[in-house]
Amino acid sequence: MATNISTRLKSKGKYSVSGALWIAYEGERCFGPGPMQLLQEIDKTGSINNAAKEMGMSYKKAWTIISDLNKHFNEPLVVTKSGGEGGGGSVITDTAKSIMKYHEDLRKRFAKFLETETGKLNK
Amino acid sequence: MATNISTRLKSKGKYSVSGALWIAYEGERCFGPGPMQLLQEIDKTGSINNAAKEMGMSYKKAWTIISDLNKHFNEPLVVTKSGGEGGGGSVITDTAKSIMKYHEDLRKRFAKFLETETGKLNK
Repeated sequence: MATNISTRLKSKGKYSVSGALWIAYEGERCFGPGPMQLLQEIDKTGSINNAAKEMGMSYKKAWTIISDLNKHFNEPLVVTKSGGEGGGGSVITDTAKSIMKYHEDLRKRFAKFLETETGKLNK
Repeated sequence: MATNISTRLKSKGKYSVSGALWIAYEGERCFGPGPMQLLQEIDKTGSINNAAKEMGMSYKKAWTIISDLNKHFNEPLVVTKSGGEGGGGSVITDTAKSIMKYHEDLRKRFAKFLETETGKLNK
């Protein structure tokens, strides 16, 4: 039985292999695109509060996401500087940067997988 | 920046890269594990009605799934035989078998991708 189904499809070029990907801890989803975007926004805006606003969530929600993520790593992902004259702010740590890079690379590999499979489906 | 994050994780061996996969038509999900299982059950039980029962869904629901799938292929996926002495029944076509084989192989390639990524994450 041929495994190439494209000859059996009515219209070619309109199909794609799509998917979702996440990291699980003991089978439970622990991080994916959402938390990664939050870290990016903290890095960009220099504050958890601003990042939360950018993403349309409460400070409390953003902090809970970060706090849940922190449990998995040897170093916190976000460090909050105490306010001096200019007030405080938050910065992401090297560990956060490392995870973000890993996640970005992982997404690229997944995108490549989907692209290859989509190519096979439509060829 | 190292992309291997495993050295930064508190506990090793408990993480996995998990995901979901489906086929989309013009961006809309059109088939995945559910419809494939339905085809398997029709093949096994020889009837859409029995297959629907096995999967805890109504005949109407099962028929709608098959009918929606049929639209994408040059040949129907399920053929209903008219009842003779022993009554009718449904059989899956070569096209259905071809799709099921394709889907099974695709799932294997995805499982391999996830396994490789999980290995990297925990190494």
